[in-house]
Amino acid sequence: MERVAICGVGLMGGSFALGLRRAGFKGSIVGVSSERTIAEAVELGVVERGVTLEEAAATADLVYLAQPIFKILEAIPALGKMLGPQATVTDAGSTKGQIVAAMRAHLPAGQFVGGHPMAGTESRGVRGADGGLFRGRTYVLTAEHWLRGWVEKMGARVVILGAEEHDRAVAYTSHLTQLVATALAGTVTQALRGEEIQVSGPGLIDTTRLAQSSYDVWRDILVTNREEVDGALGAMIARLEGMRASLGENEREFAEGAELRRRLVRSVTLG
Amino acid sequence: MERVAICGVGLMGGSFALGLRRAGFKGSIVGVSSERTIAEAVELGVVERGVTLEEAAATADLVYLAQPIFKILEAIPALGKMLGPQATVTDAGSTKGQIVAAMRAHLPAGQFVGGHPMAGTESRGVRGADGGLFRGRTYVLTAEHWLRGWVEKMGARVVILGAEEHDRAVAYTSHLTQLVATALAGTVTQALRGEEIQVSGPGLIDTTRLAQSSYDVWRDILVTNREEVDGALGAMIARLEGMRASLGENEREFAEGAELRRRLVRSVTLG
Repeated sequence: MERVAICGVGLMGGSFALGLRRAGFKGSIVGVSSERTIAEAVELGVVERGVTLEEAAATADLVYLAQPIFKILEAIPALGKMLGPQATVTDAGSTKGQIVAAMRAHLPAGQFVGGHPMAGTESRGVRGADGGLFRGRTYVLTAEHWLRGWVEKMGARVVILGAEEHDRAVAYTSHLTQLVATALAGTVTQALRGEEIQVSGPGLIDTTRLAQSSYDVWRDILVTNREEVDGALGAMIARLEGMRASLGENEREFAEGAELRRRLVRSVTLG
Repeated sequence: MERVAICGVGLMGGSFALGLRRAGFKGSIVGVSSERTIAEAVELGVVERGVTLEEAAATADLVYLAQPIFKILEAIPALGKMLGPQATVTDAGSTKGQIVAAMRAHLPAGQFVGGHPMAGTESRGVRGADGGLFRGRTYVLTAEHWLRGWVEKMGARVVILGAEEHDRAVAYTSHLTQLVATALAGTVTQALRGEEIQVSGPGLIDTTRLAQSSYDVWRDILVTNREEVDGALGAMIARLEGMRASLGENEREFAEGAELRRRLVRSVTLG
């Protein structure tokens, strides 16, 4: 790999570029973004210069799609018409089903792999880019691929998972978790006046931290993973209804909830 | 105040005793607990010696009830039969309605005030006691009382709130928050196998932190605040159903959720 093109030089794309450098990548890194973003990214040393999608497709060994999901879905058919034989296309989208289906439909076999770096997204834009963003985080690839080596050099833990299995898992671990934090925070907002919120401990702050997420990012995620998220919400609502119907006799539900913490610890320890 | 008796020398009672010392209290602190707990508490320098509830009621200026809620509800009528005219009774129970009603029914007017220190309870027992546990935390008193001075010397932020208002507020900020974390963790546990849980980011860990709470503590809370918790669960379920019915069009819910974060920051800043 000698030439990398980042499409969408924001937090994720910029962090991938800086992470590659930190991992020892010596080749060229160019960007496809708005003129303003490219100027910022060049100033910050994230990319060398801006190029068109056409130039990226013709010359890059790796085309890294780090735009919002619907922009990625737009870029793939365009790339399909001009991709050189040297190029691998990958992406950083939070859902994989529609993106990998579009890759299969429009890109040559063997020239793409879906990706999902599971790193924080509270800050936005290339100014928040951080070469250590993926360190210690899970990075899903939808198939075994030579890209794995570079991702591991950035300190990420690679998990290989098919697009459908990925989307079902993140419907619970990420999308349901976001919606629950948002719904809890909204429920408290509606029920209590400002001064009543003082009557709270640290639990409320931790449990609703995600509620500050921007809806911009989430709209695309929810629309492209609607069925799985609907199923996860249904399971969550059924569980809350069950607890509500037996309030004060919830020993089993508390035990099942605590089990997740043990699994998470085990997963991190063994991972 | 010269003599303090702590009933139930565990995490909360022990932390109150150590906090009083750190705040400059020079009088005696004794404990009412099992023989084994008293031995541990004396060894740790948390209390001077063990006494009976009868001795505590007859001699202490402050009787601090830090047992589980139903033990507090048992102790109050017993205290009523033997309380000396010098004594104020307070408590550290997480719900206030039934406890303050029992105080009103069994203790002389002007000799009690309900309390709720909103501090962490992950560790249990007197070995976890910490003189700084209440520092920076909210401490609810159900009426203005001289005890406020000591609590503020411990670094806590005192909020005066009637028992019913308290129980409604904590139904949302604490009890609903706990049940949502427990239900989310249980839903994920039921849906995903161990290795699929690797496909997660830091959001799941924060949002389900409370799921490791012990049910022992929560049973009493849920039983003594059943109506308010039922209402809060109903509001949460309705909100999740609303989001589910309009997946991908949730801008309003995200904005309402984010509003809580702003209110929490403002409440902490001004508090």
